[in-house]
Amino acid sequence: MGYPDTFTGFCVDGPKTWNQFHKAELKPKPFEDHDIDVEIDACGVCGSDVHTVTGGWGDFKGPLCVGHEVVGRAVRVGQHVRGIAEGDRVGVGAQVQACLECDLCKAKNENYCPSLVDTYNAQYKDGSWAHGGFASHIRAHEYFTFRIPNRLETNVAAPLLCAGITTYSPLVRAGIGPGKRVGVIGIGGLGHLGLQFSKALGAETYAMTTHSDKADDCRRLGAEDVILTTEDNWVDPWKFKFDFILCASKMAHEFDIARCLTLLRPGGEFHMVGMPEEPLPQLSAGAFAGNAAKLTGSHLGNHQEMEDMLRLAAEKGVKPWVETLKLSEQGCKEAVERVKDNKVRYRFTMTDFDKAFGSRK
Amino acid sequence: MGYPDTFTGFCVDGPKTWNQFHKAELKPKPFEDHDIDVEIDACGVCGSDVHTVTGGWGDFKGPLCVGHEVVGRAVRVGQHVRGIAEGDRVGVGAQVQACLECDLCKAKNENYCPSLVDTYNAQYKDGSWAHGGFASHIRAHEYFTFRIPNRLETNVAAPLLCAGITTYSPLVRAGIGPGKRVGVIGIGGLGHLGLQFSKALGAETYAMTTHSDKADDCRRLGAEDVILTTEDNWVDPWKFKFDFILCASKMAHEFDIARCLTLLRPGGEFHMVGMPEEPLPQLSAGAFAGNAAKLTGSHLGNHQEMEDMLRLAAEKGVKPWVETLKLSEQGCKEAVERVKDNKVRYRFTMTDFDKAFGSRK
Repeated sequence: MGYPDTFTGFCVDGPKTWNQFHKAELKPKPFEDHDIDVEIDACGVCGSDVHTVTGGWGDFKGPLCVGHEVVGRAVRVGQHVRGIAEGDRVGVGAQVQACLECDLCKAKNENYCPSLVDTYNAQYKDGSWAHGGFASHIRAHEYFTFRIPNRLETNVAAPLLCAGITTYSPLVRAGIGPGKRVGVIGIGGLGHLGLQFSKALGAETYAMTTHSDKADDCRRLGAEDVILTTEDNWVDPWKFKFDFILCASKMAHEFDIARCLTLLRPGGEFHMVGMPEEPLPQLSAGAFAGNAAKLTGSHLGNHQEMEDMLRLAAEKGVKPWVETLKLSEQGCKEAVERVKDNKVRYRFTMTDFDKAFGSRK
Repeated sequence: MGYPDTFTGFCVDGPKTWNQFHKAELKPKPFEDHDIDVEIDACGVCGSDVHTVTGGWGDFKGPLCVGHEVVGRAVRVGQHVRGIAEGDRVGVGAQVQACLECDLCKAKNENYCPSLVDTYNAQYKDGSWAHGGFASHIRAHEYFTFRIPNRLETNVAAPLLCAGITTYSPLVRAGIGPGKRVGVIGIGGLGHLGLQFSKALGAETYAMTTHSDKADDCRRLGAEDVILTTEDNWVDPWKFKFDFILCASKMAHEFDIARCLTLLRPGGEFHMVGMPEEPLPQLSAGAFAGNAAKLTGSHLGNHQEMEDMLRLAAEKGVKPWVETLKLSEQGCKEAVERVKDNKVRYRFTMTDFDKAFGSRK
């Protein structure tokens, strides 16, 4: 077998062997008229990949191929596809389908469609499984496949497909722009993009981190200043000062969230995009009453926001800071282990897919 | 002694004797040029009064005079007061002062001013205590004293000064109006006004209650329909259906808040105005990711919203459903006991102040 009947992916078999990748043949969903097949050239490595392979977000049965920050070339396009042609450089993120008919989809909230299909570890209605981007190819609906602007280099663009949209969408939905003050907590794969997008949107942007050694990076990423959250009473000078706090850390369950809420101007948002595996600390209703703080979170963004985000990144020079690793058993192992241990500044992109799979034509 | 040196109030001495009211002389703050003295004719009874006298929100030392839904006549106005004259019918709510100079005050968020003074159980900067409305008089800064529109009858208007603004402000700050769908959970003193204001603002409004015997009332108060939260799976038909849920219950700590959040359209608010004494149930960050639900709350509203709320109530016939009780040791006792036991539909107003205090001129 082989493409177009099957794809080849680097897979894990279960949470107990979460860092042991091996090649496996993957059967894609049946190709339909709105689908696009992408021959993959690069794939970013997201915290979600690690939460998933380790079983932190729940058990699973392998072979599982993760990866949802995909850039490659369209090699087959369904007959109803508009706007993408064979040979185009395109990206696929963490969602590959939605019904596009329900009230949510019609209201441009297809990222919350009850019938949405995640890029991997998810099943289509017909029982087919979706497979991720540590693979030779990916198949996705055209609505979830995006042309990559020329100015964005493939390896650098890849992380925008998930980490980019995840940090961009909540900022624009909250109306962030000139005159607003934004804090980004947790400067990693998500946070280093949150800083850049907040700055690119025109907001006065601050980094909040436990790592004093990231201070210079934060300033280069657009932060006016760096607030060290390890200092006693770090919150006090900043009470009522922020319109929006993007919590990009996966450690929010260890935060004193009630205190963090006091950082907000009335009606401001503490917006979680990092998803800890443990429950949040318990809060009282009174924690919200002192400034009408909003505790919230989100999941990706919609089609239009993805296009806008890629355009803004190209125009304003928003760039994931990428360390590349070669796609292989060893490369995948190193990627998930180092992401788990926070040992990446600030995002991995898996590369050298041609070497891993040979010619895929 | 007596007015103007002292006011006379019905007071409690501490949480252990929370329902035993007795008359006491109360020393007001020194009168200043922006202050107004009000001879009180009516005072609503709020859940906060009961949370306070019982010690549920913390211990206190009496004599404490509660009550912060005051309507009466201005009998003395400071020389810098504009817009209110002696003899005017005016109201005072749950806040009597703010600095009016800080960034929050300047941004029309004086209800979150760090130097705000609550109407009772609160101290002014000079050490004077603020005293509530179960009393012959109240003294307040002009910015927190409001002319009552002619169309609103005194006993009916009183609860608007706290319960009214508490339910109106979050609705308007969330942009509620035509085309929006609102749910109100907990149909009591706050909730029955939440239903009316939501309807008056043009939203499609639903009541959510455990009390099937309140269904007819809810419809009269403006609800399209009544959702009984005692039914199994009551949430399921309503997932993703609401733009805003006003949680007016003081029992939110017993709710399955994660399930309630699923009722919201993407970006919708679950907004708590009832303040339970116990902490909320623990939540995971994932509870927010499925629809970008916002968990929030608030405290009163600002000056402009108070004026708009009173005007809207007069124009659209929003009316607290009031049961009157005569101000006396026995009347105050009955009021706080029945509010504690949820035995009021839907708000008490204390009346007959002239009988309680004789002539106050």
